[in-house]
Amino acid sequence: MRKEKLQELKKYIEELKVVAQIKEAKSSFITSIPYTFKLNNGAYIKREQILKNNNDGSAVIVIPLTIDNEILMVVEPRVFTAKTVSVSFPSGYLEEGESPYEAALRELKEETGYIPKYIKLLDSFYQDEGCSKAFNHIFIAFNCTCKSTQSLDEGEIIRYMTFNLKELDKLEQMGYLNSANSKLALAKGREYLRKKMR
Amino acid sequence: MRKEKLQELKKYIEELKVVAQIKEAKSSFITSIPYTFKLNNGAYIKREQILKNNNDGSAVIVIPLTIDNEILMVVEPRVFTAKTVSVSFPSGYLEEGESPYEAALRELKEETGYIPKYIKLLDSFYQDEGCSKAFNHIFIAFNCTCKSTQSLDEGEIIRYMTFNLKELDKLEQMGYLNSANSKLALAKGREYLRKKMR
Repeated sequence: MRKEKLQELKKYIEELKVVAQIKEAKSSFITSIPYTFKLNNGAYIKREQILKNNNDGSAVIVIPLTIDNEILMVVEPRVFTAKTVSVSFPSGYLEEGESPYEAALRELKEETGYIPKYIKLLDSFYQDEGCSKAFNHIFIAFNCTCKSTQSLDEGEIIRYMTFNLKELDKLEQMGYLNSANSKLALAKGREYLRKKMR
Repeated sequence: MRKEKLQELKKYIEELKVVAQIKEAKSSFITSIPYTFKLNNGAYIKREQILKNNNDGSAVIVIPLTIDNEILMVVEPRVFTAKTVSVSFPSGYLEEGESPYEAALRELKEETGYIPKYIKLLDSFYQDEGCSKAFNHIFIAFNCTCKSTQSLDEGEIIRYMTFNLKELDKLEQMGYLNSANSKLALAKGREYLRKKMR
């Protein structure tokens, strides 16, 4: 990885890592609903559905390519992981009544201030098919340019920086790009770019 | 896809699809804990952790290659998905005190009765890094042979059958192989096999 990238990343990791945790009284974001289902063969099975903020928890993941063909990534606290900080693609939950396409443009703009020339849906998948309806969408965004500052929700702390594909592989090996969402987006993005460049 | 495979799969899909659902009173499998975290820069953020059966929910996913180099897949109800039935790699949650390696061998044996000659860890990833500690492991299992019948937990209804890689691609397109776990295992498995066959 380029030395200046590593230094920039280290600064953010140092800033955003978790130093203490306090258990609170009551969950409000994560809830669940239990169901019994009848199958076509007459069997009954019980399953529970995870809700996030009373929604399915469907999300979008955006692979933003800048006009220099670098990949724009976000660095943020991921408090439940070993590193407590991750490098990931800009992403976020769909809002009520919003299409995946709209959510992708909104999340990219909110988290980085960048706007693409056009975006393309690469793939969709269930986050956790055994206990959630969350259906996530991976977009690739071309010719992104910085048009404004970030506009983050309360409780969102996000830095952003650009990398090349090789550096993302390195971040995967280092354990900073380590989630199903990021790994699958990276795999699908690489596959798409490889085919396109043939 | 080979005609006889499609017929076998259609039979299972018909058998296992959901025909009714009833909302129940109380969740016991899915729970959550809210925390406040202090970051190194002095900021405080609130996050909630999903628990499954009071554990992190870490799981193993096994890509089982038979002695004929077919891939052994399970067909089971996935009640929250559009199709309500999925084709996926044998997988399951780690049990208390169990290593990922032990869990992979156990889940493969329980769900299919197959035992491999040897297995290899391909990759690990966080299922849902924003709100879970679930850290999943993808194994590839070689020279699997059927040694016994299934031994399923209560509430598990699982059929199994073999496919080749091209048929798995087709199942992905058809929307039956549609989860983060299965798609990532398929991508990592294909990458591994491609390198090995060079």
